[in-house]
This record gives sequence, structure tokens and C-alpha cells, in this order.
Amino acid sequence: MTGQERSEEKSECVSLSPMMEADPALPESERVCVFGTGDLGHSLGLRLLQAGYGVVFGSRRPHSSSRLPHGAQVLGHAAAAQSAHLIFIAVQREHYDFLVPLANQLKGKVLVDLSNNLRKNQYPEANAEYLQSLVPGAEVVKGFNTLSAWSLQNGPSDANRQVYICGESAEAKEAVIAVATKLGLSALDRGSISVARELEDFPLQLFPQWRLPLRIAIGLSAAFFFYLLIRYVIYAYVTQGKDISFRIMVSLANQVCPIVSLIMLSLCYLPGVLASFLQLYRGTKYRRFPNWLDRWMLCRKQLGLLSLGFAFLHVLYTLIIPIRYFVRFKATERTVSVIRENRTTEFDTTTAWRSDSYLSLGILGFGLYVLLGITSLPSVSNALSWREFSFVQSKLGHLTLLLCTAHTYLYGWNRFLSSSTYKWYTPPGYMLCLVLPSVVLLLKLLLITPCVDRTITRIRQGWERGADQRNPKDSQPLIP
Amino acid sequence: MTGQERSEEKSECVSLSPMMEADPALPESERVCVFGTGDLGHSLGLRLLQAGYGVVFGSRRPHSSSRLPHGAQVLGHAAAAQSAHLIFIAVQREHYDFLVPLANQLKGKVLVDLSNNLRKNQYPEANAEYLQSLVPGAEVVKGFNTLSAWSLQNGPSDANRQVYICGESAEAKEAVIAVATKLGLSALDRGSISVARELEDFPLQLFPQWRLPLRIAIGLSAAFFFYLLIRYVIYAYVTQGKDISFRIMVSLANQVCPIVSLIMLSLCYLPGVLASFLQLYRGTKYRRFPNWLDRWMLCRKQLGLLSLGFAFLHVLYTLIIPIRYFVRFKATERTVSVIRENRTTEFDTTTAWRSDSYLSLGILGFGLYVLLGITSLPSVSNALSWREFSFVQSKLGHLTLLLCTAHTYLYGWNRFLSSSTYKWYTPPGYMLCLVLPSVVLLLKLLLITPCVDRTITRIRQGWERGADQRNPKDSQPLIP
Amino acid sequence: MTGQERSEEKSECVSLSPMMEADPALPESERVCVFGTGDLGHSLGLRLLQAGYGVVFGSRRPHSSSRLPHGAQVLGHAAAAQSAHLIFIAVQREHYDFLVPLANQLKGKVLVDLSNNLRKNQYPEANAEYLQSLVPGAEVVKGFNTLSAWSLQNGPSDANRQVYICGESAEAKEAVIAVATKLGLSALDRGSISVARELEDFPLQLFPQWRLPLRIAIGLSAAFFFYLLIRYVIYAYVTQGKDISFRIMVSLANQVCPIVSLIMLSLCYLPGVLASFLQLYRGTKYRRFPNWLDRWMLCRKQLGLLSLGFAFLHVLYTLIIPIRYFVRFKATERTVSVIRENRTTEFDTTTAWRSDSYLSLGILGFGLYVLLGITSLPSVSNALSWREFSFVQSKLGHLTLLLCTAHTYLYGWNRFLSSSTYKWYTPPGYMLCLVLPSVVLLLKLLLITPCVDRTITRIRQGWERGADQRNPKDSQPLIP
Repeated sequence: MTGQERSEEKSECVSLSPMMEADPALPESERVCVFGTGDLGHSLGLRLLQAGYGVVFGSRRPHSSSRLPHGAQVLGHAAAAQSAHLIFIAVQREHYDFLVPLANQLKGKVLVDLSNNLRKNQYPEANAEYLQSLVPGAEVVKGFNTLSAWSLQNGPSDANRQVYICGESAEAKEAVIAVATKLGLSALDRGSISVARELEDFPLQLFPQWRLPLRIAIGLSAAFFFYLLIRYVIYAYVTQGKDISFRIMVSLANQVCPIVSLIMLSLCYLPGVLASFLQLYRGTKYRRFPNWLDRWMLCRKQLGLLSLGFAFLHVLYTLIIPIRYFVRFKATERTVSVIRENRTTEFDTTTAWRSDSYLSLGILGFGLYVLLGITSLPSVSNALSWREFSFVQSKLGHLTLLLCTAHTYLYGWNRFLSSSTYKWYTPPGYMLCLVLPSVVLLLKLLLITPCVDRTITRIRQGWERGADQRNPKDSQPLIP
Repeated sequence: MTGQERSEEKSECVSLSPMMEADPALPESERVCVFGTGDLGHSLGLRLLQAGYGVVFGSRRPHSSSRLPHGAQVLGHAAAAQSAHLIFIAVQREHYDFLVPLANQLKGKVLVDLSNNLRKNQYPEANAEYLQSLVPGAEVVKGFNTLSAWSLQNGPSDANRQVYICGESAEAKEAVIAVATKLGLSALDRGSISVARELEDFPLQLFPQWRLPLRIAIGLSAAFFFYLLIRYVIYAYVTQGKDISFRIMVSLANQVCPIVSLIMLSLCYLPGVLASFLQLYRGTKYRRFPNWLDRWMLCRKQLGLLSLGFAFLHVLYTLIIPIRYFVRFKATERTVSVIRENRTTEFDTTTAWRSDSYLSLGILGFGLYVLLGITSLPSVSNALSWREFSFVQSKLGHLTLLLCTAHTYLYGWNRFLSSSTYKWYTPPGYMLCLVLPSVVLLLKLLLITPCVDRTITRIRQGWERGADQRNPKDSQPLIP
Repeated sequence: MTGQERSEEKSECVSLSPMMEADPALPESERVCVFGTGDLGHSLGLRLLQAGYGVVFGSRRPHSSSRLPHGAQVLGHAAAAQSAHLIFIAVQREHYDFLVPLANQLKGKVLVDLSNNLRKNQYPEANAEYLQSLVPGAEVVKGFNTLSAWSLQNGPSDANRQVYICGESAEAKEAVIAVATKLGLSALDRGSISVARELEDFPLQLFPQWRLPLRIAIGLSAAFFFYLLIRYVIYAYVTQGKDISFRIMVSLANQVCPIVSLIMLSLCYLPGVLASFLQLYRGTKYRRFPNWLDRWMLCRKQLGLLSLGFAFLHVLYTLIIPIRYFVRFKATERTVSVIRENRTTEFDTTTAWRSDSYLSLGILGFGLYVLLGITSLPSVSNALSWREFSFVQSKLGHLTLLLCTAHTYLYGWNRFLSSSTYKWYTPPGYMLCLVLPSVVLLLKLLLITPCVDRTITRIRQGWERGADQRNPKDSQPLIP
């Protein structure tokens, strides 16, 4: 605001100056210049006009620029530069050198570098720093580069309403912030021009937070795939000479998916439990967690969503079981053998209980899982208070883990005790995958026993062991 | 804005005063003070710095406060208080008493109370009122308490961009609103300091709008569970001595889920129909609905989403039917008995039509159901015009109800007429659950007959029966 | 801002004038007037009060207006009009004539027309133009009409935070933009009052972007339904005299759904491929695409989502197969015939591989499909950088198409070669639907061969064939 007011004072002189070519009706603070008449320049100019600014385009061939927004002026670069205090550079870095001869006209102007690169480290220095080196007399502000022509035309939506800027001059940055606010954007100052490279890397990011969870998921899937391949397909081939390799497509996939899903769900709740024990052990919440725990906690959402993806595949793989040729063939074969061998089959109520229970637990677990996934959608989680969010993600999350673990235990049932289960002395996959969730649930059970829970709550409220009489803690409870 | 300008005038004197310790380069309106160096204070300070403010932290031990954001100043409490007009109190209520000795320095200052409590009614009076009683000379404004350190660091997203404030002094509130706007927040004045308790209860809410629908869902589930338990399991045990208790896990659950789902879906559309009839009866839209109807209408979305949850479980429970041990056993048994008794089975085209039709209607109904659920997501419903939203929720909603009701009727088919259906003279669950949806659909059918529809439309446009010649209605159509 | 400041200067005189009836404590710029005490006027007034404005309601019967928000003043229309510079007209168009006698008081005032109509082209001219013709001395600004009383009361959310305005006077529009900003809205100026009709049509839109995709979906469904009806049901009746009409409900539906889904998915990726070939052919990205291609590209999202809907139905229809009476009957019959005819059945590993593979590919394809659908949710796609969004929608999208096409080829398997497949010399539906996706995948394969890919990338970076040494391209890469 202040920057705007200051420039208004100045603008009185400018608008009286005789060399003024642009529409003199508007004070300089209400007029901005855009260099570049490509898609981005075009969309930005239109948006600025709609927000009430006078817009002057700078162009090499001002008389042949055809498709510019109605209401904008087009001037040569030099004249355009003189007409406004703030100049948006919507030109690719490769063409920046046309600015060098304009050094005089650009002196003291605010240049907003909007450029992006095609890949990281494309150039030795940030585009904004390069621009500053070309036009040392101007104040370069990097920013708005996360906006695309498309989002400018359609109005920014929530996530890209937030734009980041950086630059040396506080005054220049305030002028840019003022324009951003008028465009309905919320600009945040990230510091000096040295941050420009970071800002330029933003639009090139490819799911940085998903990398670690994805690697874990792929690693676990591969490991369990080969483990199960050996235990089932190769074992059957070696010991019985049977080729059951066709089972890879559905049976094996349907074992890998639930195993990876359950392990990743427990990996999603393990760091929270570990953090609580660390706080208990240290007796304070004021010491930072080790870096690995911090990074782990930051990717819990991604771990949980990947886990949900595997659970979803498991559900689909399970539901198509009765449609499979193999299963239909086996069913017919079984019935035929009952008849031919004149056997009687006995209905086993215990098996019926077990079968129905593990299916039912699986369904309820998956239902809660989907609920957790839905509350992770940005628009849903934003609508929750932190108490609601933590209730869903913590209470319902642990309940989901409990249901899914019980589902797996019931699936195993008494096979845990039968030695024939342990082919080549290896346990089946579902037993291996039960280790981690069981540990997490046991630790969580310990944490919610009244006496431990009371200590944890006090620590989270700022109490410190051995320092009961310390001073105002200057703090407030956070999302645990 | 005005508050800001006013304080700017004052700031000139302050920044000339010799006792000034803080960076004198910034006018007072551009400088804010934060008391409290915990997570919240830290994040708030960082955010204020990014928005262009000068930030002064007040601390008991200004020289040992290590982890403060770069660019902020740290002073003793008294000096910090003097350096700015606006002071954020990011300290827990229990430690407010350190402010008492600062009364002189805080005179006339705006104190923003950010505190939250751990549970409702933790203290006799609101934190902000307590703060005001401790420092009577200052202007206390309650607000920003829905922001967490986490959301401040990551940039506020849509839902928590809206913050509420309250306080006695209009001028103080305007100063706070100005800061909020610069931080990219939208602050709404909710009135005097007496509202503070309400604002402090906001972050402690736990799904207040879901309580009534959840109670209805749990009540209905329990009632139908016991009803069906008696009709199936206990009936079989008493009359035939058979133990079919294992059916509780899947068969019973798969009856309770669709029943509760259909009843709740009709409960979701019943109040709208009732409201229309009430408007027809009264001949005007200008009289308020009775309170119970208002409350009912406000929880329609929650009723519908819970209903969708039960429908989802019903779908899963239905799809796993062929995997169940009991079902596979029965299928084998049936085939075996056909062979052994040398029966011939006749294909019944009518049964095939009925079976395929009710499955197909169920699938289409569920598909529409999911569509309704997706349009209820905040980000999707926000992107719809009110005409689109009302088309989806009203037209498609009633179509969903129609499909699901028809699905249930086809499921019942001619069993409605067979006396063997009525065990112990009670109707099966699916018949009971058809009552309400049938009534809703009949009433809706009445409402869309041309003559009734015309009257309703006129009433909604402001026409009143018996008052045709009244004056400008000062009104505009709302979402029905 | 400037508009606001200007009116502040004027307000000093006004607030001194003796005919002033409203609260003189506030300058005129801080006071707004609302005509209309219906739901919309009421909610708007409340919101204005919360944002710190003084609100004066104009009413015919100022002493009998009961349910107005606390803190607002109620005056007669004339007195209310005089008390503020900006007047919101929250009255239905039919009642605008009460404004004619107020012409004197309204002279020079800014009238904001908030009205909406019940249907398009309800009146010969826009409501705002009609209002201007009634009160020629006032400055009419159309705007805020997308806001409902409901959204004003509950705080605007992301999508309806953006409001459009139009009008003749730039100064009047700036005053309205200033109020919008204070209400937390982002107002965009769309031009002169002649745009008013367009703005008034906004809230009446009913999925304009969904029309073409919906028509395609309905057309394809109907065409394939009749094609398959003839090939299966009528063919069986004519050649074998069998009535298998019951198969319409599930078997036929389950063929139409995947066919339409696969065709629409390829229609979703075809325009992108065509556009690339067009750019290759033209050797530049600077020429506009033909209109039909532009329109096609704009509805890709809708095509994809409809395709996902059909895929979802296909999954449900497939999963209920084993529950169908017909299928269970056939299974029993098959087993019985094996026994009675004393046949032996041989397990065919190739069939098992084929069956499991096409199910597995279908599951993986559907899983990716759902992922694509989730990333299309506004809140999710907004959270992605453009590189992430294009990775998901392009790379994963084509992978989905590949998986689904392979799923269909495997379903067909060697039946492509068997002449019995071609009843009445027509190919089965799944063969027809493979044409388009195969073409799209082949073209895409061509595009990603290194030499073609290199040329495309250069063209997208601004390079033009035959014009290598042209000047600064004033442009920046866009979402492809």
C-alpha cells in the first residue's frame, strides 16, 4: 500500500511530462506495462485490465501486434517502459538481451520476472539474477511464475491463488504485492533475489513428497512378489512338477496387494507412536525430533494414500475371484468328485463363522479406509477443524489398522500352527506382514493406558519433566 | 484501511521518540509485535515478515531466544510492547499474568488474543475477557484462533482463510482486519467481546452437524439388527432348532445396511417435500418453518452421505456373496442333490428377468448415488452454479431414490403376497423400509403435477395467497 | 482504492450536511445502502456489517421491518438513498418501478444490480440495462448476482469468491470492487453494461460444458445398444427361436458400458494427438487450431469423466455376474451335464492365463482410471503444479488407455479369427470399439519416437519451421 502511495506522488510529475505517450488519464500507479505478447503476456494483460489497471504492451513491432486484449495500448519497448513504474517481463529468458539497450528507460523501474525453465539447472544462474545482471539499474522482482496463462484466463483457484515473490528492494516487492492483491492473488515475500532459483524450480516439481513413499511401495511389492513367486509357483514346480504360473496374474497379485497395503498402513501410524515414546522418554515436547523421524512424519499422508490404493486393488482382485476360469473349473471339479466318489460333505459352522467374519472385517476396514481417503482430499480436510481432522486421522485411522489386522489374523486362523504352512521353512506372506501392524497396535495400546496417556497429554500442553517451575512457555497446543 | 491510516499519523511521533528501541525505518503501522516464541508465535512471525511487516518478538529472555525467524527482532516484553501498536498474544492463558506488570506499556495498544482451550467450559470466562480484565487499558480483540502454526507455515487454504474476530473497539478491529487482509486471510467481525467464548469453542467442535444424522443411523441400525436377529436367527433356532448364528456377520449385515440406507435416503428428501406442502398450505414463503423442520433441512447433506456409506457397505457385502464358504457349500449341495435325486431343473425366464432387473436397478441407483456423493464434495459443489447444484441434488436425487426403491420392490417381488414370508406375523425388513420412500415418492409425484407445481413456483417467486396486490417483495429466489 | 479515496473527500461535505439522517459517525465511504429486505438483502446487509460497513436499509415501511440484522439502520427509500453513495438493489426486477420517483435522490449514486432471472431471455433487455433506463442519472453496475443469500451467510467458498461486475463508469466499478475486496470477494471487471445479460445468464447455466460429451455418450450408448440387441437377442430369436430378452438388463448393459467407455476414453486423447500432428504439419505453435478442435479439446475432461462413469458401471455389472440367477443356473447345468454324460474336463492353462490376464489388466486399468478421476477433482488438480498435472493426465492417461485396450484385445483373444464370431457378417461390439483406441495409441507411439518428439518439443518452445532467425518470441511454454 505504502509503495503504491509513494509511486502516486511521483506519478503526478510523470503524467505531466511531455514525452508521455501512454493514456495520461490514469496515474502511473494505475498503469502497468507488459513486455511480451505471447499467451502469458496476453492473459496477464487481460487480467490486469479486468482488475482496473491501464495496460501498456511493449512490442518490437507495435503496429503489427494483432491479437492483444481490447483496451490495452501497444507501444515500442522504450515508450512502453517509460509509461509505467512496474513492468512484467513475459518473455523467455533466451530473449532477455533485447532489454540491454533499454537500460536508460528501465532505470529505477520494477521488473517482474515471470519466466520458467524447461528443467532444473538449465542455466548456471536463476533467470531473475540473469535479468538483474543485464539491467543493473532496475529493481528485479521474481514472482508469479507459478501462474499459467490458462489459470490467469480462468481466474486463479484456491491453490494457485498463492504466489511467491522475492527480490532485493522491499519497495519494489510491495508494489508487486499491491498488484497481486488487486488481481485476487495472495503474494508472499520469500526474501532476497537469491531465492529466485528455488521459486523457478517450483513449477518443475514432480511429486517431491511422493518419492519416498512410492519407493517404499515399489520395493515392498517387488520383494513380496519374488518371495511369493518362490513359495508358490516355483515350489509347486520343484516339488510337484506342476506349472501354476498363470496364478501370477491374479492370485499372486492378490497376495502382494493386501500385504503391501497393511505394511504401509502401519508405516503410516508407526512414526506417530515412535514420536510419542520419544517425547515420553525425553520428558518434553520442546526438543526437535531426529531428521529421519521428521521426514517420515511428513510423508504419512502419502503412505496412507498409497496403502489405500493397494487395498482398493486387493478388493477388486478379491471380488473377481468367482469369475476366474480357474475358480469355476475347480468348483465344477469339486462337485463332480463329490458325486463320483459318493462322498458326503459336512457343513462346518466354525468355518462359516471364520469365513464370514474375515470378509466382514475386511469390508468394514475398507469402508473406513475409504473414509480416511476422502477426508484427505484438500477440500474436505480444509473444512474440518483440527480437532475433527485429528479425530478422523488418529482415532479412525487406528481403528482401520485394527480392523485390517484382525481381518488378516482371521484369514490365517489356525494355519499359524500347522507345519504344512511353512513350505521350505518359510512363513506365508500374510504372517510376515502381520508383524509390523501388531507392533504398532501394541505400542498404541500402551500409549492409551491411563497413566501413560496422562503424562503424554501434560507434555503436549507444555509441561517438562524436571522443570515444573519454569516460566511462561510461550506456546500453544498444535496438531499432535 | 482507515484504522491503518489513522495509526500511520500517530506513528510519526512514535518513530521520532528517543525511547524507541526497534528498527526505526518502518512506520508503526508496518510493525507488529508478537508475545510468545512457541510454535504459533514463530509461525505467525514468519508469516508477518513474509507479508512485509516488521516483527518484534517480546520475550522474557530476549538474548536466549534462538529459533526465531530470520529478520525478526527480539526485545524484552516492555520494549517490544512499546515498539508496535498491535500485539499478538501467542501465549497460553495460564501464563497471561505476566502481562499485568506491563499495564503501562500496553495502554491503548491492540492485543490480539489467539489462544485456544483444550476443552469447552475449561474456564469460567472466555480467555479474551480474562485478558481484558487483566489489562483494562488495552483494546482486546479475539481472533485468528482457528489458525494453527501448521496452516500459517503452509499458507492458509480455502476453508481456514476465513477467520473470525470480535472485540469492543471498532478501530482496533479494523487494524486487525487490515493485518489479516495482508496475510491473505478474510476476517469477519462477529461483534463484541462477548462472542469470544463462541469463537474459542470453534476449534473444539467435533462434527456438530453430524450428531443428529449419526444418532439416527445408529438407532435405525440397532433396531433393525435386533428385529432381523429375532426374525431369522432366533426364529430358526426356536422353530427348527438350527444354529445359523454365523449369518450375523454377512447376511444380517447385508440386510441392515440397505434398509438403513434406503430409510436415510428418504429421510434426506422428506423435509424438502414437507416444506413444499407447508408453503402450499400457508400460501406464502415468508413465514419461517418450524424449528424441527429447519434443523432437519440443515442436516440433509449429512443424512445423504451416511446413507451413501451404508449403500457402499451393502454393495461390498453383496459382491462378496459368491466367495462365502456357506454359499459355495450350498451351491455344491444343490448340484449334488439335483444329480442324486435325478431331478431336472427348468430355466425360469421370469426369475431371470426379475433377478437381472433388480441387480441392474441397484447398480444404476448406486452409480447415481456415488455421483451425488461426489457433487457433495466442497470443491465440486463450489464449482457448480446454484441451478446446477439444485438440479443434481433435487432431480438426480429423487431419481436415485426412485431407482433404489424400485430395486427393493423387485427384490421383494411376489413374496409380498406369500404368507410364509410373514414369520411370527412380522413383515421382513425390506418391506418395512419401503414405507417411507414410497410415501416420499408419492408426495413428490403430487408436487410435480402441473397445477401444484405452478402454485409452488409462484409462491417461491414471492406471490402470496390472498395478498396478490401487495407491494415490492424486496426479495429474490433462493436455492429451494 | 482510488475510488474509495475520492469518495472519502466528498464524504466530508455530505456528513456535514443538515439533511443527513443516517448515523453521521461514519464517513460516506464506510456506509452502504441496501434496498430490499428479503433473504438476499438481509444476508448481504449482515455481511457488510461484519466487514465493518455501516448499513442503511431502504424500505417502504421502515417501521415495520422486523427481521433485519442487528446494527443496521432502516429508513424510507428516499432517506436511505441519500445516506450512502453505493446502493445495492436486492429487489426483483418486476418491482424496479418504485425507483422511478427516487430519480433525484439517486442522481450520481452507484446502483449495484444484484438481480437474477428465472430463465434465459425472460425479458427483452438485461435487468441492469432496464434499471439504467429507469434511473438514467445513476451509475448502474451489474454484479454479485452469482452470490446467494446462503453463500453470503456461510462465507463465500473458493469458487464463488470470484464475482464478475460490469458497467459504464470506471469510477463506479472501482467503488464496487473496493466493497467486494472488503467482503473477501475477488471482483473482476468484465466490461461495459452490455455484458450484463451474459452475467445474468451465469447462474442459469446448466452444465454447458457437459452438453457435447453427454450427447456423444447417449448417442454411442443408443447405437451400440441397438446393434447388440440385433446381434444377440434378435439373432437368437430369429435363428434359434430362443427368447433371451432377459439378457438386456445385465449382459447387454455390460457390453454397452465398456464399449462406450473405451471409445470415449480414446476420444479424450485423440484431440491432443491430432493437435500435435497439426503443429508438426504447420511447423509452428502460433497458429490457432480450427474451431472444432478447440471445442473438442475444451471438453476432454468431461469426456474422460463420463468414460470413467461407464467404466464404473462396467465394473459393477461384471462383479455381480456370479450372483445372477442365469449364471448360477448355467453353472449347475454344466456340472450336471458333465456327470450325466460322464465327460472329463481338462484344465486349459492357456485359457487360465488369458482369463486371469484380462481380468488383471482390467483391474489395473480401472485403478489408474479412478486415479485420473481423483486428480480431476478441482481441489486436487489445484494442488498440482502444471508439470504434475500434465504428467498425470498425459502419461498416466495414455497408460490407462493402453491397459484398457489390451484388456479388450485379451478379452477377444483368438475369437477375432473365428468366423462363427461374425453373426450376420457383423463384428461383435468389442471389435468395433477397438478401432479408435488402436488408432490413438498408434499415433501416440509415432509422436514419442525420438525424432518426432524432438521436433514437437522445439515447436512448443517457440521454434518455427522456416523462420529460425525470427525475433524474440515474446512467449512462454504453456500447458500442452
